[in-house]
Amino acid sequence: MEKLNSLETLLLHEVQDLYSAEKQLVKALPKVAKKASSPQLRSAVEQHLEQTEQHVNRLEQVFELLGASPKEHTCKAMKGLIKEADDIISEDASPATRDAAIIAAAQKVEHYEIASYGTARKWAETVGRNDITRLLEQTFNEEEQTDRRLTELAMSGINQKAAEQMGEEEEFAE
Amino acid sequence: MEKLNSLETLLLHEVQDLYSAEKQLVKALPKVAKKASSPQLRSAVEQHLEQTEQHVNRLEQVFELLGASPKEHTCKAMKGLIKEADDIISEDASPATRDAAIIAAAQKVEHYEIASYGTARKWAETVGRNDITRLLEQTFNEEEQTDRRLTELAMSGINQKAAEQMGEEEEFAE
Repeated sequence: MEKLNSLETLLLHEVQDLYSAEKQLVKALPKVAKKASSPQLRSAVEQHLEQTEQHVNRLEQVFELLGASPKEHTCKAMKGLIKEADDIISEDASPATRDAAIIAAAQKVEHYEIASYGTARKWAETVGRNDITRLLEQTFNEEEQTDRRLTELAMSGINQKAAEQMGEEEEFAE
Repeated sequence: MEKLNSLETLLLHEVQDLYSAEKQLVKALPKVAKKASSPQLRSAVEQHLEQTEQHVNRLEQVFELLGASPKEHTCKAMKGLIKEADDIISEDASPATRDAAIIAAAQKVEHYEIASYGTARKWAETVGRNDITRLLEQTFNEEEQTDRRLTELAMSGINQKAAEQMGEEEEFAE
């Protein structure tokens, strides 16, 4: 890799990392949607997939504005996040418990993206690239919205359902 | 692993994941602190290390309250986050650029923890374990504080320094 001697090089590196992260997600989300039992959750994951495809396109615009070709720099963090999600949703689980686990895994992914886009947009702003800042900001806002939507979904009954299921099957000792 | 048929099993699984994540961090942070050039950043990382050690202790209290022995379930996401951080801070970089990269990596770690503790405390609350909720909430708040502190640090000059350095070394084409 080129020497990291400027915030612009760092920004390009971050965009390459995000490009890899979003592309990994595009591959992983259909499997997650299939595993969801709640129709609301399935539709939230499917919507997230559509958004993720838009985020890939938006990053390609950023590459163009940076005068660089779209290139992935394997995002090891997203690899770990997806592996972890895959492990937990493949476990032998009751439907409501798996739904709660899917939401948890999805929120970890969202938070990774919130942190990454949050940083990238600030770097773009610092180097005076308002055009790039705007694009990154748009995705940042969408990731935050998705995260809030997932919290609402969890609180609107999925967690409770998973907890009640527990009550039926085993006593909870406090 | 035991069948995931209850929110309590899921909570225990999440706590085991966090226990592994925090222990990985305790090992990784001293190296990160050594690589920081800004004294403020170094001290922030060192303070984060102290906090992380407290978070490990707090998780051990949670295990006790759950009637389980402390056990790590390898957190693959944190493994990826640390590997990614290690890669970027080991690159040939100017001091200010490396500092900006360290903050970015640390904020990704914080966001992973914010998402995980955020979920775990809600699950604990749903199953009516206020004692556990309080402990997880305490760490959740500290992670949010650290994240805000890192943003302030970045905005208080480190990003700008990294950008100015760029200005000296190469022209930025808009």
